[in-house]
Amino acid sequence: MSTAGQGQNPLFPRILGHEAGGVVESVGEGVTDVQPGDHVLPIFTGECKECPHCLSEASNMCDLLRINTERGGMLHDGQTRFSKDGKPIYHFLGTSTFSEYTVVHVGQMAKINPEAPLDKVCVLSCGMSTGFGATVNVAKPKKGGSVAVFGLGAVGLAAVEGARVCEASRIIGIDINPNRFEEAKKFGCTEFVNPKDHKKPVQEVGFLENSIPYTLLNFERVIAEMTGGGVDCSIECTGSTQAMISAFECVHDGWGVAVLVGVPSRDDSFKTHPIHFLNERTLRGTFFGNYKPRSDIPGVVEKYMKKELELDKFITHSIPFFDINKAFEYMLRGEGLRCMIRMDA
Amino acid sequence: MSTAGQGQNPLFPRILGHEAGGVVESVGEGVTDVQPGDHVLPIFTGECKECPHCLSEASNMCDLLRINTERGGMLHDGQTRFSKDGKPIYHFLGTSTFSEYTVVHVGQMAKINPEAPLDKVCVLSCGMSTGFGATVNVAKPKKGGSVAVFGLGAVGLAAVEGARVCEASRIIGIDINPNRFEEAKKFGCTEFVNPKDHKKPVQEVGFLENSIPYTLLNFERVIAEMTGGGVDCSIECTGSTQAMISAFECVHDGWGVAVLVGVPSRDDSFKTHPIHFLNERTLRGTFFGNYKPRSDIPGVVEKYMKKELELDKFITHSIPFFDINKAFEYMLRGEGLRCMIRMDA
Repeated sequence: MSTAGQGQNPLFPRILGHEAGGVVESVGEGVTDVQPGDHVLPIFTGECKECPHCLSEASNMCDLLRINTERGGMLHDGQTRFSKDGKPIYHFLGTSTFSEYTVVHVGQMAKINPEAPLDKVCVLSCGMSTGFGATVNVAKPKKGGSVAVFGLGAVGLAAVEGARVCEASRIIGIDINPNRFEEAKKFGCTEFVNPKDHKKPVQEVGFLENSIPYTLLNFERVIAEMTGGGVDCSIECTGSTQAMISAFECVHDGWGVAVLVGVPSRDDSFKTHPIHFLNERTLRGTFFGNYKPRSDIPGVVEKYMKKELELDKFITHSIPFFDINKAFEYMLRGEGLRCMIRMDA
Repeated sequence: MSTAGQGQNPLFPRILGHEAGGVVESVGEGVTDVQPGDHVLPIFTGECKECPHCLSEASNMCDLLRINTERGGMLHDGQTRFSKDGKPIYHFLGTSTFSEYTVVHVGQMAKINPEAPLDKVCVLSCGMSTGFGATVNVAKPKKGGSVAVFGLGAVGLAAVEGARVCEASRIIGIDINPNRFEEAKKFGCTEFVNPKDHKKPVQEVGFLENSIPYTLLNFERVIAEMTGGGVDCSIECTGSTQAMISAFECVHDGWGVAVLVGVPSRDDSFKTHPIHFLNERTLRGTFFGNYKPRSDIPGVVEKYMKKELELDKFITHSIPFFDINKAFEYMLRGEGLRCMIRMDA
């Protein structure tokens, strides 16, 4: 779950769940954008279409409906719509999708093609869009370029899928769990590097760049040697600060772009020698793959319908709702990528 | 001098000087791109037109002729062309322009319009192109946008000139020397902030952004409050690591771009909380304003000829060659911007 940083305040009891697809059952007063029967993806962050962020081409960080892990009620009255035995049960990320019915702000609803299979395109409501968009919207590798993806979980593999769609010629997967390498081949990874295989003490290797000495982990040197100076772009999907630093330092000088996706902990610090920037490297972060939830996600669903984007391979398990705790077990064991929870079963 | 990082190895005796304009007196064997009588700007970094950097649209960091502060001779034989009493005098940056005659690799020569006044456009061979290009080629503010420039020396004021040409509506100059503010107004600065006026201990101010606490200097908060959340872009022209961090943290989330120009010292470290990136800020560095010396600089000279770019205001002093040591005195006293040294006087 890309929003799970350490240090958040828990608010319980609440209904979790934020990656889902559904059908509108009814709408509240004044809601005109969707109507009963519409197929929708509820999104953990919204789009009011009126604030400076929504009006900016570059941003998807809506002032009104930006992700808020603390809020437990509906936006306009702060109240919850769930209860049990007269006691409130709180909402989560405005979605609370581990439920047969939920109440979602219209600004957090992407209305999609009703012919799209909800049990597949639901994964576009968070993780797959986040990774895929990080590559195609932010890193933007050129056809024939080289891409390094740090972390081969579902979000990282979605970034790999983006690199495949952009026709990158080399897609280097980086993970400390070698079991992930076989799976990643199916997604288009052409090479693999396990940082643990190249572990030497930090600062053992000294380089010279523009006359200013700096240090490089042996691991980043491996990437540089594999690629004639560094990859064209890298996408960091782990949340580890060391992976962020490596992802930045392993891009080529002159044109390299590194994109941060993984969410860090509260006390983390990104640290590098400024010469890496001055040698014309770019570092950017992205949130939800820079997609505007309502404006852009319906188009990503269309990409899937036209077979320009593959999603089925991300869904490795499917279980009925009453077995939901098994899904957490899979996740904790690092087994598979996405587990579909069928509400109708 | 933008290339002066601490920690370089001195090589003496050598002829200094790298910001200049001149006329070709003769050419070596095989040189066809320039001929005697051509007006040229010698550039401290070159363009071979054949390496991956020269072939990339994004980069100007030529593999063959990239700036090299250590090299004291010509590229192809390592030998110096200067001597006195039979003893070698070394070259500097391939230019050595504090001399009536010098020898420069053709890959470090921008052939320019012969009608352009050399005593004005010479400043485009380093500092003014560096600052101006940082804004127009890298930060790229939109018409009506807000720009913060850190450091109001000549390079910073050239970045301000870039913001003026891009029609930014707010150009915020930042410097710890308040004497520079009056001068900067003439260049288009609309507002000024002196970090010393807003100095509080680091980490005194705590903010919340996406539920992850982070700290902000009171100074960056001042910029954020002035601009409704941060500037659209910032350009750092001091080389101070703290200024780099401030320049990055003061850009708006969602779309802000910070550009590093100033050269750091060898032991510096850029440090920030990664959440600033994830909230869709971009950090880039630039070298010589991302201009390719031979391909792009002649066009910048044309901009001056068409009065789209002002240069005269940067040249505050003019002295004959025999008085050159006065120029160093002006520089050390922080007096004026550029001192023209007339070789014909």
